[in-house]
Amino acid sequence: MESKHILSVLQQVQDGSLDIHTAYEKLKLSPFEDLGYAKIDHHRKIRQGVPEVIYGAGKTAGQIEGIVNALLPQCPENILITRLPEEAAEYLGQQFPLTYDKISHIGIVNYTKRLTASGSIVVATGGTSDIPVAEEAALTAETLGNQVERLYDVGVAGIHRLLAHIDNISKATAVIAVAGMEGALASVIGGLCDCPVIAVPTSVGYGANFQGLSALLSMLNSCASGVSVVNIDNGFGAGYLASIINHIGG
Amino acid sequence: MESKHILSVLQQVQDGSLDIHTAYEKLKLSPFEDLGYAKIDHHRKIRQGVPEVIYGAGKTAGQIEGIVNALLPQCPENILITRLPEEAAEYLGQQFPLTYDKISHIGIVNYTKRLTASGSIVVATGGTSDIPVAEEAALTAETLGNQVERLYDVGVAGIHRLLAHIDNISKATAVIAVAGMEGALASVIGGLCDCPVIAVPTSVGYGANFQGLSALLSMLNSCASGVSVVNIDNGFGAGYLASIINHIGG
Amino acid sequence: MESKHILSVLQQVQDGSLDIHTAYEKLKLSPFEDLGYAKIDHHRKIRQGVPEVIYGAGKTAGQIEGIVNALLPQCPENILITRLPEEAAEYLGQQFPLTYDKISHIGIVNYTKRLTASGSIVVATGGTSDIPVAEEAALTAETLGNQVERLYDVGVAGIHRLLAHIDNISKATAVIAVAGMEGALASVIGGLCDCPVIAVPTSVGYGANFQGLSALLSMLNSCASGVSVVNIDNGFGAGYLASIINHIGG
Amino acid sequence: MESKHILSVLQQVQDGSLDIHTAYEKLKLSPFEDLGYAKIDHHRKIRQGVPEVIYGAGKTAGQIEGIVNALLPQCPENILITRLPEEAAEYLGQQFPLTYDKISHIGIVNYTKRLTASGSIVVATGGTSDIPVAEEAALTAETLGNQVERLYDVGVAGIHRLLAHIDNISKATAVIAVAGMEGALASVIGGLCDCPVIAVPTSVGYGANFQGLSALLSMLNSCASGVSVVNIDNGFGAGYLASIINHIGG
Amino acid sequence: MESKHILSVLQQVQDGSLDIHTAYEKLKLSPFEDLGYAKIDHHRKIRQGVPEVIYGAGKTAGQIEGIVNALLPQCPENILITRLPEEAAEYLGQQFPLTYDKISHIGIVNYTKRLTASGSIVVATGGTSDIPVAEEAALTAETLGNQVERLYDVGVAGIHRLLAHIDNISKATAVIAVAGMEGALASVIGGLCDCPVIAVPTSVGYGANFQGLSALLSMLNSCASGVSVVNIDNGFGAGYLASIINHIGG
Amino acid sequence: MESKHILSVLQQVQDGSLDIHTAYEKLKLSPFEDLGYAKIDHHRKIRQGVPEVIYGAGKTAGQIEGIVNALLPQCPENILITRLPEEAAEYLGQQFPLTYDKISHIGIVNYTKRLTASGSIVVATGGTSDIPVAEEAALTAETLGNQVERLYDVGVAGIHRLLAHIDNISKATAVIAVAGMEGALASVIGGLCDCPVIAVPTSVGYGANFQGLSALLSMLNSCASGVSVVNIDNGFGAGYLASIINHIGG
Amino acid sequence: MESKHILSVLQQVQDGSLDIHTAYEKLKLSPFEDLGYAKIDHHRKIRQGVPEVIYGAGKTAGQIEGIVNALLPQCPENILITRLPEEAAEYLGQQFPLTYDKISHIGIVNYTKRLTASGSIVVATGGTSDIPVAEEAALTAETLGNQVERLYDVGVAGIHRLLAHIDNISKATAVIAVAGMEGALASVIGGLCDCPVIAVPTSVGYGANFQGLSALLSMLNSCASGVSVVNIDNGFGAGYLASIINHIGG
Amino acid sequence: MESKHILSVLQQVQDGSLDIHTAYEKLKLSPFEDLGYAKIDHHRKIRQGVPEVIYGAGKTAGQIEGIVNALLPQCPENILITRLPEEAAEYLGQQFPLTYDKISHIGIVNYTKRLTASGSIVVATGGTSDIPVAEEAALTAETLGNQVERLYDVGVAGIHRLLAHIDNISKATAVIAVAGMEGALASVIGGLCDCPVIAVPTSVGYGANFQGLSALLSMLNSCASGVSVVNIDNGFGAGYLASIINHIGG
Repeated sequence: MESKHILSVLQQVQDGSLDIHTAYEKLKLSPFEDLGYAKIDHHRKIRQGVPEVIYGAGKTAGQIEGIVNALLPQCPENILITRLPEEAAEYLGQQFPLTYDKISHIGIVNYTKRLTASGSIVVATGGTSDIPVAEEAALTAETLGNQVERLYDVGVAGIHRLLAHIDNISKATAVIAVAGMEGALASVIGGLCDCPVIAVPTSVGYGANFQGLSALLSMLNSCASGVSVVNIDNGFGAGYLASIINHIGG
Repeated sequence: MESKHILSVLQQVQDGSLDIHTAYEKLKLSPFEDLGYAKIDHHRKIRQGVPEVIYGAGKTAGQIEGIVNALLPQCPENILITRLPEEAAEYLGQQFPLTYDKISHIGIVNYTKRLTASGSIVVATGGTSDIPVAEEAALTAETLGNQVERLYDVGVAGIHRLLAHIDNISKATAVIAVAGMEGALASVIGGLCDCPVIAVPTSVGYGANFQGLSALLSMLNSCASGVSVVNIDNGFGAGYLASIINHIGG
Repeated sequence: MESKHILSVLQQVQDGSLDIHTAYEKLKLSPFEDLGYAKIDHHRKIRQGVPEVIYGAGKTAGQIEGIVNALLPQCPENILITRLPEEAAEYLGQQFPLTYDKISHIGIVNYTKRLTASGSIVVATGGTSDIPVAEEAALTAETLGNQVERLYDVGVAGIHRLLAHIDNISKATAVIAVAGMEGALASVIGGLCDCPVIAVPTSVGYGANFQGLSALLSMLNSCASGVSVVNIDNGFGAGYLASIINHIGG
Repeated sequence: MESKHILSVLQQVQDGSLDIHTAYEKLKLSPFEDLGYAKIDHHRKIRQGVPEVIYGAGKTAGQIEGIVNALLPQCPENILITRLPEEAAEYLGQQFPLTYDKISHIGIVNYTKRLTASGSIVVATGGTSDIPVAEEAALTAETLGNQVERLYDVGVAGIHRLLAHIDNISKATAVIAVAGMEGALASVIGGLCDCPVIAVPTSVGYGANFQGLSALLSMLNSCASGVSVVNIDNGFGAGYLASIINHIGG
Repeated sequence: MESKHILSVLQQVQDGSLDIHTAYEKLKLSPFEDLGYAKIDHHRKIRQGVPEVIYGAGKTAGQIEGIVNALLPQCPENILITRLPEEAAEYLGQQFPLTYDKISHIGIVNYTKRLTASGSIVVATGGTSDIPVAEEAALTAETLGNQVERLYDVGVAGIHRLLAHIDNISKATAVIAVAGMEGALASVIGGLCDCPVIAVPTSVGYGANFQGLSALLSMLNSCASGVSVVNIDNGFGAGYLASIINHIGG
Repeated sequence: MESKHILSVLQQVQDGSLDIHTAYEKLKLSPFEDLGYAKIDHHRKIRQGVPEVIYGAGKTAGQIEGIVNALLPQCPENILITRLPEEAAEYLGQQFPLTYDKISHIGIVNYTKRLTASGSIVVATGGTSDIPVAEEAALTAETLGNQVERLYDVGVAGIHRLLAHIDNISKATAVIAVAGMEGALASVIGGLCDCPVIAVPTSVGYGANFQGLSALLSMLNSCASGVSVVNIDNGFGAGYLASIINHIGG
Repeated sequence: MESKHILSVLQQVQDGSLDIHTAYEKLKLSPFEDLGYAKIDHHRKIRQGVPEVIYGAGKTAGQIEGIVNALLPQCPENILITRLPEEAAEYLGQQFPLTYDKISHIGIVNYTKRLTASGSIVVATGGTSDIPVAEEAALTAETLGNQVERLYDVGVAGIHRLLAHIDNISKATAVIAVAGMEGALASVIGGLCDCPVIAVPTSVGYGANFQGLSALLSMLNSCASGVSVVNIDNGFGAGYLASIINHIGG
Repeated sequence: MESKHILSVLQQVQDGSLDIHTAYEKLKLSPFEDLGYAKIDHHRKIRQGVPEVIYGAGKTAGQIEGIVNALLPQCPENILITRLPEEAAEYLGQQFPLTYDKISHIGIVNYTKRLTASGSIVVATGGTSDIPVAEEAALTAETLGNQVERLYDVGVAGIHRLLAHIDNISKATAVIAVAGMEGALASVIGGLCDCPVIAVPTSVGYGANFQGLSALLSMLNSCASGVSVVNIDNGFGAGYLASIINHIGG
């Protein structure tokens, strides 16, 4: 898929060092490993800069173990597992050095703290109940080499709590705004700063919240510029995207 | 339906000044006038403090004229007609002294300014496009005898525009927060003041706004206390309710 | 944020009793206390007239205990905790004098009955199953110093049950109409009285009720004036708003 | 499909008066006439008691003319055409004796008034704007041989207007309750009478009405027994059903 | 509310046998009994022909017991309790002679079979899983004095199973069509017979069924005339309505 | 219903070997067997080529046993039971030779592998969590006599994993694309091959996935031609349809 | 992308007849032609068996002309243009020999009738108003070389109209069931035949039809096997898919 | 609001060069200009790096003219007006040097091309009909000083059209993926590159597209990391956000 790879194969065919059927197989063969229930994408680190992240929900502890084992040779540290149930974490903790956070259900195999970007990411929440999603974002960003500042419970119903932190917000390279209920936090932050704001609607609330729909629609309709939205409760996606943005600045 | 009325009828029966069949008819007869296509509720002024308001949408100019004529004897001034199309307004303006506002489509027959409550009502909008709905609220409240202060285009994407008016807001007896898109204005105002906030979602916006659904859900899920919501674009309902609340204070 | 506070700080700067950096910090510093997982808003009693209310859902008993402890110095009685699970109530009952209602899941620390408004609030329900939400509203209003009258199971399918209480309704300063299913109660009450009607849709029902959506839409579309709506099952919000309105009258 | 028809065919086969291939065709042949764009169901009058009704929407005047011509031989009078646009009505009026109502867009070819049932049907509306749908119901029922009583603009916001007519309602064999907005009329009527109540939600309203969804859900969730619902704005369906019910009583 | 009652009271006033304040109380007093958590409507049997039915969901066994005790003096047999959980049934069975059906969760106190109408009601289901809702309808109708014929598992995917029973269907006074999934049964039956068809969508199905929404919408849009719809899974409502219709014929 | 059956009955009537009443019963009698709770459709094998499949959800083990027993005489092998809970499978396994797959919850009585079509069916999934639905499709197709190739975890986020298998896809007679989340797999496969693509949205995902709605809408709006969609999680339906298509080719 | 193409390029590299940079370009170069506003996919005829079809909606007559001109060299006849507005058709008719159908808005450049498959496709509609969508399907299938039989207005409300054509249906290789309103036609046809049924929901109807949603959900939940669904009003997609299926049989 | 501003005011108070009441006004006064119908936010350029952008929809030409006049002194070039109707553009073009694009409805006052960031932004569309939204994004980004590369009509149904441009995509600092229908483009691009992907769902499509809902949900559920979403048809928001991200890199 990548031009260098294709050119190198063709070079070998021209050299006579490769017969055309083997070359064909090489061109066709994509760099993944087939476990049957999963196809591990080793090329991803090159293509996207970070190794494959394991989405733990709906996988057995055994399947996750298999995937980790397949990844380890190419990716010896900081293998991120999201939505990892406690029981599976317990099992995996016996197989690998696993750092596990019970609030966000994030697990990290061979966790090694490392700062690879100079900017910082602010993770803000509207309320106390949004913290699990916020921690998923924060831990993801930290594992991917970013400095993270947490501003929890600064919802718009007491706007002065947010305004008190305006300096922190204005220094960030990217802000992650995590909020349920009416999700107004994203718009208010979006109006206060000039960096990208990644809005994460949460399913926190009840009634006409409809499992996060109200916050989702609210954030999509933000009248502030610079705001984009990820899926409801998708802390990982926000942390990952914030990390990409933060690494642009070097 | 009202105890005084019932007691008075019974008194007359006991007095012998009323035979029981006439009394029965009187008790059964509710105080409305039947125009065929509409039943005018003359009792309403007594029961609810304000005369019947005419909802102009879906009625012909002739039907509205008929209803106004039926109301005039009992209610000689300030007959409010909402959602009155321009053409119907033109026709009615030839029959009655009609004050008509093209932005909010409000018409008032025999308009007489009068202040019957001591407090004031703030009508705030998120943007310029919310003004028609806001004016429906403001004119309704003014017609019902209230002092109204307008704060337009103070949406949360530039929160300082709102904060600059915090004193006006804190002095109001009731605030009407009119906003489309993400509707965050209601929550922010709700967090800043201690009076009732009546939230009016508007259909202003596009896409995932879904004709006002995003603002509606956002306002219903407000994390601020003291906020309640009326129908999308229902400026009249908000102005009417604010007037009732403002008159409680005398 | 409040003009008096700003003026006083500036006065001290002019006096020389305050250097400009401390003044800056004072102006920036908002009056809240940071517990990490929550930011307690001590200024709120001044700003909104009532202390912060604790939304118990999604918080651990320990977190609630921490917040109560932070509030007590400034707010020695009637700290309201809504949606408090029974187990958390048991734990908190061992730490503080806690009045707990199992039906509405309301807890009150250092409950002291006190009447601070002269009017009364009617809380009406359509059916027996709406009582938990109604009690959340009623207890909230009582804790905030209001007299409350309960009219339960007066749904519109037997309209005479409601009409029998028309005198009570017509004397109220505010009515809270709590109903699930088709939510028609709010419209009927709205047509009978001239005070604000706060409609609370409940999730009581099944099928095309869609967890309260039918009652919510019904109430938002009420053809009666003076009706506004809070979130599905939000008894607290209705009780709080009714209290604000009831205190306008003094 | 009908047992008599099958037995008669078999009889003829046994008699030798019919060969088996003709018999097979007779058994297979259903009693309809194929116009290409429509298949006229002549058997329907026998099967369902009334001739096929023509749904005018989405058909050209020419197509409707063709269907009427096909129906006339078997059904010389009272051919009902619903949702007939004015222009098509003008054209058809030149071909047949057509009675046309501009409000409900109902057309009737060779209209002949006739009373075939002893009971009566009440058609009630919440407001003036619901009248077109109500008239579709009323005219359908009248064309099908029923006596109809109209109670228009008796919505629940002024409940005494409805209660004044309680005697008329209690004498009906069936009541059709036509209402938009919050659709509470059906429940209130359902609670007042003991006959079947056919609820017709209308698309009258705006905002969170969502084109009749609020009234539809409200009516489906009616807490009154004896209420069933037809499609939004489906006056014809309600009138037709009420007629069937009214004819059960003879 | 009823004319006879009013006239009789007035008569007594005129007679002097009643003073006007007592008369006023009598006119105001509606014939229900207040249990606090429920208001028993003794007038209903007169007003609607059947006694109050107890909706068991969301009530404690104790509350139901209280309501039954309040009803028994006026209504000694066939007190219907719907959605009665098994545990509550067990308790009630120790207090009263209770007939309980585990499939439909219907309980009947002092059940006495009795046929009060001459026609019959057909209850048809699309599949085996619709039977609990169908039984709720069938048992309700039987308790209210009707003869019921059950046609289960005659869904349209094997239309000949339904066509085989066309004679039974054509003899019914009313048909109840109970179906989940695509809910086509109502339309097909509606096209085959000339009596009222009461459609009951069920929540049977999965995926794009959305808890009965697909069947509900399907039935509301039925292209067959004579079909009306009740709430999803509302077997009781269908049985009750069918009984009213069946009793019209005497 | 089938012409041969009708002609043969008529022949016997003409022959005198059948009296007309017996003939009538034969014509009316549809070839199903009534178990009370279910009507077994023995004619289906002739009419549709495959025997009735048992939908296990919502049926008791005893009911399923009864249906299997009724089917066995006419259909001695490969009786398919979908959505069969483990406990029911355990019981049935004691009554019949049952092959049971715990992942897809498919049970097969008297399973006999047999290849009756020459083409092959590809079953592809977007992720590991879609495998249960995919296996329902694959096992259904295999039981119905098809060769099936599985391509699991080839979602579009790593498109090279899919492109590596382009040859397998281009050789298939039909492809089943099983995917949750954004469901893009169907469109991408649809653009790569020229055979029918049966898209199966799954409920895999969270948040704005809304239980499979996002994948469902995505697949219905596919910009690729040749794609059609079955219900969310309906692996059986896809496998069945793919088998029909695969057997067209012989 | 196709193995033969890759192997041939590699062969040339080995032969020395191609230098590696040209080879690289050839491998990278996909066989489409870039018009700026559109990328014509010449490879598609090889990859999918039919040339690119032009979706006319949202394109100017000039853009369509450009695409046709780009396609003509490789595809001299039967270029299909769907959703072609009349005005655009008029313009294009002056540039090319265009066959245009005003009902379905299908245009065909250089139309040449040709039968390339031996089976036949039945296109059935529920009503007269569904014909435009049905014709889009029928004309698409005919243009792609199939024999098509039309069965219009055979909706389930008069099921005998459909049953009369059971022989035609049972001979088809594929059936396209086009229906709006409750969409039951697909299920009934699905239960009668053993070939693939492609269900096309239409937006025909009103009210709770919600622009085709009712028919869509109904068809997705079909209890008949062998049914799959395309987008609302997507006649083209159904005709295209039916053609692919019909060509499997040769 | 900004620390420097506050400190400078305090400095002047301490200096005695400012009395405390003027200082108070200065602190309270936010830097906006009130036009009555709009409040121009002059501070925004400092706070967010770009001047206020004018959302043209729902504003009169006169209102827009007024806002432009208010902005010009502080912002002499590149004033962006989105959703500007053609007639308003004509009027404004007579008042100011206006560059207007009819496809995207973007107007720019005093347009001056300028490159202020070193990276580039790719704007890709699924089809030809998505171009208007894409151009809104592209022109916004260009006006804000970015280099933009357009890749139009590279939808996933012909994935090779996209793969041919993989090098362009992999060099971008940010990619904007604009697509309607099933919106799969965002996921596929997200899987191919390692920069932020801003997904813009469009309302292009019909039927179950539901005005862009299908693409919106699809993009929110993207299984690719690094993807975030803006409102349906919100090209401006995507272009603005991409510009912010592109300027991080310098």
